[in-house]
Amino acid sequence: MTTVSLQSLNTADKAQFVAALGDIYEHAPWVAEAVAGQRPFATLSALQEAMIAAVRAASTEKRMALITGHPDLAGKAARAGTLTSESKAEQASAGLDRLSEAEFSQFHLLNNDYRKKFGMPFIVCVRRHGKDSILRQFERRLRNDAAAETDAALTEIFRIAALRLDQRVEAAERLKVHGRLSTHVLDTHGGHPAAGVTVELFEISRSGERRMVTSGTTNRDGRTDAPLIAGQPIPIGTYELCFHVGQYFARRGTPQADPPFLDVVPVQFVVAEPEGHYHVPLLVTPWSYSTYRGS
Amino acid sequence: MTTVSLQSLNTADKAQFVAALGDIYEHAPWVAEAVAGQRPFATLSALQEAMIAAVRAASTEKRMALITGHPDLAGKAARAGTLTSESKAEQASAGLDRLSEAEFSQFHLLNNDYRKKFGMPFIVCVRRHGKDSILRQFERRLRNDAAAETDAALTEIFRIAALRLDQRVEAAERLKVHGRLSTHVLDTHGGHPAAGVTVELFEISRSGERRMVTSGTTNRDGRTDAPLIAGQPIPIGTYELCFHVGQYFARRGTPQADPPFLDVVPVQFVVAEPEGHYHVPLLVTPWSYSTYRGS
Amino acid sequence: MTTVSLQSLNTADKAQFVAALGDIYEHAPWVAEAVAGQRPFATLSALQEAMIAAVRAASTEKRMALITGHPDLAGKAARAGTLTSESKAEQASAGLDRLSEAEFSQFHLLNNDYRKKFGMPFIVCVRRHGKDSILRQFERRLRNDAAAETDAALTEIFRIAALRLDQRVEAAERLKVHGRLSTHVLDTHGGHPAAGVTVELFEISRSGERRMVTSGTTNRDGRTDAPLIAGQPIPIGTYELCFHVGQYFARRGTPQADPPFLDVVPVQFVVAEPEGHYHVPLLVTPWSYSTYRGS
Amino acid sequence: MTTVSLQSLNTADKAQFVAALGDIYEHAPWVAEAVAGQRPFATLSALQEAMIAAVRAASTEKRMALITGHPDLAGKAARAGTLTSESKAEQASAGLDRLSEAEFSQFHLLNNDYRKKFGMPFIVCVRRHGKDSILRQFERRLRNDAAAETDAALTEIFRIAALRLDQRVEAAERLKVHGRLSTHVLDTHGGHPAAGVTVELFEISRSGERRMVTSGTTNRDGRTDAPLIAGQPIPIGTYELCFHVGQYFARRGTPQADPPFLDVVPVQFVVAEPEGHYHVPLLVTPWSYSTYRGS
Repeated sequence: MTTVSLQSLNTADKAQFVAALGDIYEHAPWVAEAVAGQRPFATLSALQEAMIAAVRAASTEKRMALITGHPDLAGKAARAGTLTSESKAEQASAGLDRLSEAEFSQFHLLNNDYRKKFGMPFIVCVRRHGKDSILRQFERRLRNDAAAETDAALTEIFRIAALRLDQRVEAAERLKVHGRLSTHVLDTHGGHPAAGVTVELFEISRSGERRMVTSGTTNRDGRTDAPLIAGQPIPIGTYELCFHVGQYFARRGTPQADPPFLDVVPVQFVVAEPEGHYHVPLLVTPWSYSTYRGS
Repeated sequence: MTTVSLQSLNTADKAQFVAALGDIYEHAPWVAEAVAGQRPFATLSALQEAMIAAVRAASTEKRMALITGHPDLAGKAARAGTLTSESKAEQASAGLDRLSEAEFSQFHLLNNDYRKKFGMPFIVCVRRHGKDSILRQFERRLRNDAAAETDAALTEIFRIAALRLDQRVEAAERLKVHGRLSTHVLDTHGGHPAAGVTVELFEISRSGERRMVTSGTTNRDGRTDAPLIAGQPIPIGTYELCFHVGQYFARRGTPQADPPFLDVVPVQFVVAEPEGHYHVPLLVTPWSYSTYRGS
Repeated sequence: MTTVSLQSLNTADKAQFVAALGDIYEHAPWVAEAVAGQRPFATLSALQEAMIAAVRAASTEKRMALITGHPDLAGKAARAGTLTSESKAEQASAGLDRLSEAEFSQFHLLNNDYRKKFGMPFIVCVRRHGKDSILRQFERRLRNDAAAETDAALTEIFRIAALRLDQRVEAAERLKVHGRLSTHVLDTHGGHPAAGVTVELFEISRSGERRMVTSGTTNRDGRTDAPLIAGQPIPIGTYELCFHVGQYFARRGTPQADPPFLDVVPVQFVVAEPEGHYHVPLLVTPWSYSTYRGS
Repeated sequence: MTTVSLQSLNTADKAQFVAALGDIYEHAPWVAEAVAGQRPFATLSALQEAMIAAVRAASTEKRMALITGHPDLAGKAARAGTLTSESKAEQASAGLDRLSEAEFSQFHLLNNDYRKKFGMPFIVCVRRHGKDSILRQFERRLRNDAAAETDAALTEIFRIAALRLDQRVEAAERLKVHGRLSTHVLDTHGGHPAAGVTVELFEISRSGERRMVTSGTTNRDGRTDAPLIAGQPIPIGTYELCFHVGQYFARRGTPQADPPFLDVVPVQFVVAEPEGHYHVPLLVTPWSYSTYRGS
């Protein structure tokens, strides 16, 4: 994707500005047009707020058109390949492009129920969710009344727009749209960081399916060189960190049972805030461990 | 299975004694015969030691016949249904009666390699092992020389006999052939035992397969009413205890994230001593936990 | 002190019964007299409840006489040696017989304030308190109104009577008037109970003064042979358990820093329920430890 | 104290250079003279190494004169006020300027024993030690032979010089002569850093005496704004961190016992490496805590 600097957006002519940001709101270049005259924007956040204000200030018809202009999740447009490129990438990030037939049917039914009740497509900022979490949102929001649900749809549209802005525009201060997941392994048998521990991160679905998200090895400070997840929202969902501590202690010659009492230590936790900082350390001996949400 | 008291064995006539204990050693009633004259036995352990001494005192030919009288593990006899009832139950306890074709082939090949090298069947006290552990034993012992392997086979035969004695004979003092696995959940958020926590115990195979061994619920003391495993050896292998703490804290109204940071806490550990006492407690808050091999 | 069985109390003549229990309530043998006719008592608890009911059923004058018949805490009677033997032992248990001049003055002033406000002596079941806790009770209860304070005095009198009954009368079921303090040391470096750890228990006063209550050594199960406190209420107060882990690890040859990072591990905690069971374990390596209120 | 930049030392004339660094080695300006011609020094470390090499290259007589030119610890010169200003400040840092009479006598005796055995004063880099640690060094080194002890004295002289250089000379890269002690409090009841916890650091002497070194309050990240100790060696000795967690939880309205089970949590640990980084965190609920040497 091409990126553009905030500075050049501030000095571009109106047509260029709208061309660059016209798809931040799905099928709604009028939002970019509405704020072009307010330039220059000192920060990316000021630009974002102006666009939100423009949506809120628009007529009810225009706002409803913005909402109904969104595609269904995992819907016919996705199957037919007629999504905007942004929508396509977003739906893929949550795995909606690789649903089983059963899951596809479930989405189809929920989409229909939702449209029947609210007369609009179900909108959710999918980069902030795993598949299970999207389904849970669907079920919860189906219980809303129409007014609450219009608000909910707008909130999600603003989140989608914020992530698109974050990806499109270079600026000194970033929007607070990213989370971070990190770990740290401390060898409390030896009293020092545990270096060389293999760490794997899995996403666990409600059905028990495991998908490896990333893996790494701890450095001499007991950390992975980079956070396990950064630079994106952490999709709401259940994760499992697997720490290969049996190998680690064996390599150091630490006395262990044969086979070792602890081999792979799984730590399962749930992410509820996609923009949160999750630090999940492990304090470990061959016979014991502790873990916690740290900071 | 019929059981018999040590006392009645001590006073029975020789034929009855041999009838009762003739199958403690596989196809070798001569072991029972050899010790009948040493009665009365003050303890079950004295009876066991006498039988071991009789095996050791027998001629090499007789001892080798005892060894070669054992069936293959997961072998043709098992398939053909011609095992002794003891052997059949023992092999079933380790899951050898429900092997996949691939596993059956693996056992078949190892049995052949073993017979070719040592001229006898591979003997292991299967009640002390899971499937993976039996395969590991196979591989290790194939590297032995003949003398070491004859010793190893006898050691296993004595373990099998001890477990059969333990099941057959009632006596005040039991043989030390059982392990115990227990747990305890302490709510360190509230400062008291965690009552009503669902606990599940799984056996995990090297291939990642999970088999539920047992499950239970903690009582007001934070323990399950009975140990998770007791009254038998704990098969050597990898286990996972799953503690359903998210439900527990939700039921108590403890403030948690939505969804909770910790839902199911898996604790994976490896049993190396089938006769050991494994106490694996959990100290838990909605945000942290510790576990360890306790006592 | 002579003890007497519940059974013999049930069959004694009335005079013997009153002689045996006349001093359960301070200077008030009429309480024992009042219940003598209700014998036999099935349990010690039934006897206790009957005596409480007798006090509550008595005339206001009699009840106030019972209250005012109690001596001051650390007062002139104590100095003059004219306390009943029960009161003397009780006041000594809380250290009221070894006050500094400053503390004696503080008690004197509080006693006067209390008498001035309520027209009766300050009564508290001193076996359930340390010195600091008694002073805190004094300050709290001085803020009560007269009715609440009469109730509070009676509650304390019933507690005193329960402890006296517990000490005087042998019965199958005991009254629930005792607490218990125990510990357990687990070596999570080695994965087993820590045997041979010196453990000291101190009572810590608000002024920082430390008084050793007891000490012991852990056995092969990581516990002291007997609980640190049992068979009595645990006086409300601040305690410190000191675990000599540096010595322990040194004796085992466990690698440590020189000098060891952890030498004596102090665990300070506060007892709020004298009849509670306080289990305060230590999980320790040469570099880390955990402790918690266990069960 | 006046400081001087490495750059200006490199360009100063020889007399100025020697004037600035003549007292880095006690009464031995010849060390500075010996290295003046090797300028410029790229780093402070290069300067330090050059001075060490000059001492090692000097004649035995000169080296012994350097050693014997040092004053006794807590000796007559200290009492008489005739120490160099560096020595005076150094001895004060370890509390040697405020010894009791008994301690002064102990030092006097050890100084005499040492001089009698080795014919030189006992030299130790006192900024790296607490009082107890100096006495332990004294006892250990009295058991050395003369050669080992001359080496030990030089090692200490080099450490003293390094600290004096570090204080005197400004340079981009510092010498590695400082340690750091830090803490972190995590509230595992609430699942976030514990802000506003009062933390006190005490130095504990073998005799039980406590001296407050510093105190602070945790910020919203659960840390003190500055490390508890930094910019100096951490004197070898026993320390106690006191965390006022009872107040913290009370202020937050967290349910606790009355009075709270945990009020002040003392964590006692021993510093063995004055240049080490000691991170001693606390994970705490109202009912439990963990601590460890972190990183």
